[in-house]
Amino acid sequence: MENALFKNPIIKQILDYYATLWALDHLNSLAGWDLRTYMPKEGVVDRGEAFAKISTLSQKIFLDNKFVSLIKKAENEPDLNSYEKGIIRILKRSLEKYEKLPPEFLEEFDKVTTEANNVWEKAKIENNFSLFEPYLEKIVNLCIKKAEYLGYKGHPYDALLDEYEEGLTTKEVEEFFSSIKEPLKKILSYIKNSSRYKTEHPLSLEKYDKKEMENVNLKTLEFLNYDPKKLRLDVSAHPFTTNISLNDHRITTWYRENDFARSLFATIHEYGHALYESQFDSKINYTPLCNFSGLSLSIHESQSRFWENMIGRTKQFIHGMHKSILGINPNLVKYNVEEIYNYFNLVKPSLIRVEADEVSYHFHVMIRFEIEKGLMEGKIKVKDLPKIWNEKYKEYLGIEPKTDREGVLQDVHWSSGSIGYFPTYSIGTFLSGLIKYEIEKDIGDLGNLIKSEDGIKKIQDWLKEKIHQYGGTYTMKELVKKSFGKDFSPSYFLSYLEKKYKEVY
Amino acid sequence: MENALFKNPIIKQILDYYATLWALDHLNSLAGWDLRTYMPKEGVVDRGEAFAKISTLSQKIFLDNKFVSLIKKAENEPDLNSYEKGIIRILKRSLEKYEKLPPEFLEEFDKVTTEANNVWEKAKIENNFSLFEPYLEKIVNLCIKKAEYLGYKGHPYDALLDEYEEGLTTKEVEEFFSSIKEPLKKILSYIKNSSRYKTEHPLSLEKYDKKEMENVNLKTLEFLNYDPKKLRLDVSAHPFTTNISLNDHRITTWYRENDFARSLFATIHEYGHALYESQFDSKINYTPLCNFSGLSLSIHESQSRFWENMIGRTKQFIHGMHKSILGINPNLVKYNVEEIYNYFNLVKPSLIRVEADEVSYHFHVMIRFEIEKGLMEGKIKVKDLPKIWNEKYKEYLGIEPKTDREGVLQDVHWSSGSIGYFPTYSIGTFLSGLIKYEIEKDIGDLGNLIKSEDGIKKIQDWLKEKIHQYGGTYTMKELVKKSFGKDFSPSYFLSYLEKKYKEVY
Repeated sequence: MENALFKNPIIKQILDYYATLWALDHLNSLAGWDLRTYMPKEGVVDRGEAFAKISTLSQKIFLDNKFVSLIKKAENEPDLNSYEKGIIRILKRSLEKYEKLPPEFLEEFDKVTTEANNVWEKAKIENNFSLFEPYLEKIVNLCIKKAEYLGYKGHPYDALLDEYEEGLTTKEVEEFFSSIKEPLKKILSYIKNSSRYKTEHPLSLEKYDKKEMENVNLKTLEFLNYDPKKLRLDVSAHPFTTNISLNDHRITTWYRENDFARSLFATIHEYGHALYESQFDSKINYTPLCNFSGLSLSIHESQSRFWENMIGRTKQFIHGMHKSILGINPNLVKYNVEEIYNYFNLVKPSLIRVEADEVSYHFHVMIRFEIEKGLMEGKIKVKDLPKIWNEKYKEYLGIEPKTDREGVLQDVHWSSGSIGYFPTYSIGTFLSGLIKYEIEKDIGDLGNLIKSEDGIKKIQDWLKEKIHQYGGTYTMKELVKKSFGKDFSPSYFLSYLEKKYKEVY
Repeated sequence: MENALFKNPIIKQILDYYATLWALDHLNSLAGWDLRTYMPKEGVVDRGEAFAKISTLSQKIFLDNKFVSLIKKAENEPDLNSYEKGIIRILKRSLEKYEKLPPEFLEEFDKVTTEANNVWEKAKIENNFSLFEPYLEKIVNLCIKKAEYLGYKGHPYDALLDEYEEGLTTKEVEEFFSSIKEPLKKILSYIKNSSRYKTEHPLSLEKYDKKEMENVNLKTLEFLNYDPKKLRLDVSAHPFTTNISLNDHRITTWYRENDFARSLFATIHEYGHALYESQFDSKINYTPLCNFSGLSLSIHESQSRFWENMIGRTKQFIHGMHKSILGINPNLVKYNVEEIYNYFNLVKPSLIRVEADEVSYHFHVMIRFEIEKGLMEGKIKVKDLPKIWNEKYKEYLGIEPKTDREGVLQDVHWSSGSIGYFPTYSIGTFLSGLIKYEIEKDIGDLGNLIKSEDGIKKIQDWLKEKIHQYGGTYTMKELVKKSFGKDFSPSYFLSYLEKKYKEVY
């Protein structure tokens, strides 16, 4: 592998060896995508079996003495550049995990979550939490065990948070939420008191034809400058992104044939995730720097949320897509850009996180955070979840789901074993506020850019230069410091919200 | 793994170890399917890289001393049952190959064929052999090298034939073809002299809507008793089957919007392949007995050709599917079962093997055989292929392709490195004649079975009992002997052809 970024001979040996792990990860990602998109239902048990074996195999290959001693040797090398240091940082994190988690544990974790994922889908369709309950019980117990294996300083939940955001602690998340809770409540109460406040928009009731909506989604991707030779859009029970390689990105959306914004924003959100990884420097291909485990999920979410909210929910985007959107249903002709804008930015307490508005969104995440923390502490039992879920929605948002489908069963994460992931949604969203601020400082008003001929491309180039190209080279905190010369702070996003919603309401 | 079939403790250890190889193979199959169905085009280089690494890894895992000595130890175990013996037979074959083929060679082979597959698709679409030529050149050279590595007694082509049909030699193939050539010519000349002979059928010109044809294909699968929870139908440049696990089968077909038989029979053909592996005894799951490398491709092809010709091309099948077929185009209403039957069984020299009638089909395969043999001997050069191809079609079938798309570029096999595969198509087809004879002896006339309510199921149960359940436990010759108490002979198929086409013409 001749590559200008990596000069150190030990790093080169590491990357040579690593290529096999990359290949396993590549196939694993594909198999995960397939599981949720095209796999015939009955394939699930065998797929779980395969994941379990591959997980054990990857661990074994990683823990090979030769490789481990290369990693340890590389640590003490002088004059490593940032990319090389990033590689060592990421590999050491994996190494630590692999050394701590027994192979049997990983195998069980994979097997349980593969099955649980399928059961969750069924449970959600049938609105039957009791189907999913025993699996979630197993997953929570496995996560508690995982935290014990991994170890933690403060709270067992720290061990899980760290998996998604390097170094993130329960204490930090608590501080973050407590710093945004009151300001968000204030904005929400301003909106609720506005004469323009309403809890329903007629557009959400407009039905659409799935084919037409697929067309709108594809047109949206075109508007956002996607490359169909590198990215595909499919359908799944819950939208997600899988980056299978630097040149192969898969996103999914959903269609329920009314409330078209739900399908549209899922597409844009996932596109943001895919764009991030598609703009990695091609020189980091096949290295740990493009491995998902080395990425900050807050950065990842900042990208999806940036495209979803700061591009997709603007008048300029709606203007550009207006003609396509009107095509989904003849009734829509009567809605002008302004009205669609109001629909896209309707703030109201609602039940589904992924459809929530920009303001109340974070209360959904706070609820998840409290529940996950409680589950990890053993203070909340899985069997009580539907009840607790509903109580918390009542408390935070003043509304209660009528069914578990729109309550505790709504999200895919737990079924995949992803406990500790949710806080990065809020942190990432707040990071997108900082990013918007920096883009506008550097290349001008986002609205104007969206309107201008190559504005989307300019935004993407900027994101590539400041954020994307590096992959996992830096942690979130390091990258913010390096690219923007400052620390992450929630204030930018709060200012953005305040300004925007005082205009809307 | 507690399993009634495998009692021997060494075999049990072997299977435990083998499960990882099974998992790699599972993911590999999926990645191959994805490459030809849904993968974004630009993903191809990285996919090739992954295949190459996984191929090397599989070899390394296979050649682990511990595993190799288990295989060698198991060979000398007394009282192994047939399944256990089958496992050892298959593993020894792989072992021999792995020991003989250097990992760098396998890696290169994978990389070249992954790219070549994509280039072939493009070359075929653009009707441009010169695009594909350098890749095919590489593949032929790699195959020559492969034969040298593997070794052979008689002819270098033997080494390749053996990869697809255990023990098959160039000499045997030559004998087989020379025994069927004259009888086939006789049948063909009978047909050509019949007053009913024609080279065109109006149905082949009827256009269809792709959506409607998809529906016919799915209805056909329903008629043939498929399980949608275990099998899916997609679209690809060349129809193929991938059996991803015992419970996950993927077949593809193609649509070119006229000549609907082409799409229909591709579907049925591939379904035959999938059905075979879907009826393996579930107890052989995760073992070498269900690994593709352990299967006789003649048996595999006997299944696809059986369903395609002996079920799909019957009046009873057409009767059952008549209503669906009429739906593809309002013009079709005027065609009754008899006319569709004549269309499905129109014998005429044609250019495309997969669309060829049951009689002239084998001349296509003879041409391939002669060309492949010549390529391996170095007597035929890749650059001369379009010319030689056309000459041979002139000689054997009296017609010449106007484009390479319908000539030398028509089939996917060479681009995947599959040289030596084609003869199994003919041998398999002739085996299907023996199978038809045996089914009818045991459970009655096929036509009556297709008409009767659970007849398809009865045929499938019979196939499961006599052939499918065993997976790779026996070689083709062994299985024919065991299940039917006789040796394979081409005479059954020749009698079937003669009887059928003397009725049709």
